[in-house]
Amino acid sequence: MLSLEEKIVHDGLALGTQIVKVDSFLNHQIDVAFLHEIGQEFGRLFADKHPAKILTMESSGIGCAIAAAQALGDLPVLFAKKTVPSTMVEDIWYADVKSFTKGTVSRAVVARKFLTAGERVLIIDDFLAHGEAGMGMIEICRQAGAVVVGMGAVIEKEFQGGGARIREALGDGAELHSLAVISQIRDGVISFRH
Amino acid sequence: MLSLEEKIVHDGLALGTQIVKVDSFLNHQIDVAFLHEIGQEFGRLFADKHPAKILTMESSGIGCAIAAAQALGDLPVLFAKKTVPSTMVEDIWYADVKSFTKGTVSRAVVARKFLTAGERVLIIDDFLAHGEAGMGMIEICRQAGAVVVGMGAVIEKEFQGGGARIREALGDGAELHSLAVISQIRDGVISFRH
Repeated sequence: MLSLEEKIVHDGLALGTQIVKVDSFLNHQIDVAFLHEIGQEFGRLFADKHPAKILTMESSGIGCAIAAAQALGDLPVLFAKKTVPSTMVEDIWYADVKSFTKGTVSRAVVARKFLTAGERVLIIDDFLAHGEAGMGMIEICRQAGAVVVGMGAVIEKEFQGGGARIREALGDGAELHSLAVISQIRDGVISFRH
Repeated sequence: MLSLEEKIVHDGLALGTQIVKVDSFLNHQIDVAFLHEIGQEFGRLFADKHPAKILTMESSGIGCAIAAAQALGDLPVLFAKKTVPSTMVEDIWYADVKSFTKGTVSRAVVARKFLTAGERVLIIDDFLAHGEAGMGMIEICRQAGAVVVGMGAVIEKEFQGGGARIREALGDGAELHSLAVISQIRDGVISFRH
């Protein structure tokens, strides 16, 4: 998605070799007009998979998931929670997700009643790095018996290996689409694979 | 907002006298079609205040804030973070926010560069209970010298006193609008004030 690559280069910030900051338009401040474009692109890529629900991870996946849901006909969005709220009294599905940046493990939780066996689920997230969050969401869908019809990431950092892990976990019939794939971050320059 | 009250009664769940669960359509699973209606209502209520930006709190405020932003002409949405990411290296504004349900205090953080003096800010959140999150966001705007032109909450629990605190803090010229105001939760019955 060329407009996204341009936005990453123009408004993003490369930090070292591992991190690109996009907090001016994606995961702290959200450019709502641009979010619409992201949603349209996910809609174009996944309409033929006929998802019934979108699953994402709080917090920064929520905006992208809503935009994709709007483009796909106002699908419900379910966001996995990283802390179990005291009001969540029912049975849950969960997966433990490691954060390489923070060096911590957090539990991603979904109420069982919102994911049902056979339900066609599209997973959407803002970043795909080592693939931990994506693998956690795939695991949650497997626990529920839901069918993962695909996964969409706004920005994939290819060199961190998550894309390969997710593709293997998805298997045949479900595709991973990343709207921008970063192949390298070096000396403040962000390079993309096309 | 009558359709919201009906949705709370129909899809919500009253727990004891303090909690109403709306995780089937608002803060775990999101009803994206209904979210559009919520956004339209905030747009109608706040268009004449001419906000330039919407401020909300992660995670469950994000959806409502995006919907309001879309209704107001694709305003940028800024969401305060409850944990400081390792990639957030710049100067921050912050406020400490107490959670009465969890009995904890967390720090809500915003990068200084995204809130500027004189900027017209509309605060949006899903719940208004004791008013802690709202007061924290007002405090963050004050630190930045931003102008709070109003605050919108989807659901206010009037009996927890947050509305009165927020109205006093907003002062003249800025209004609080809650789309549904719950006056009492008792024996599984949710009562509204009109």
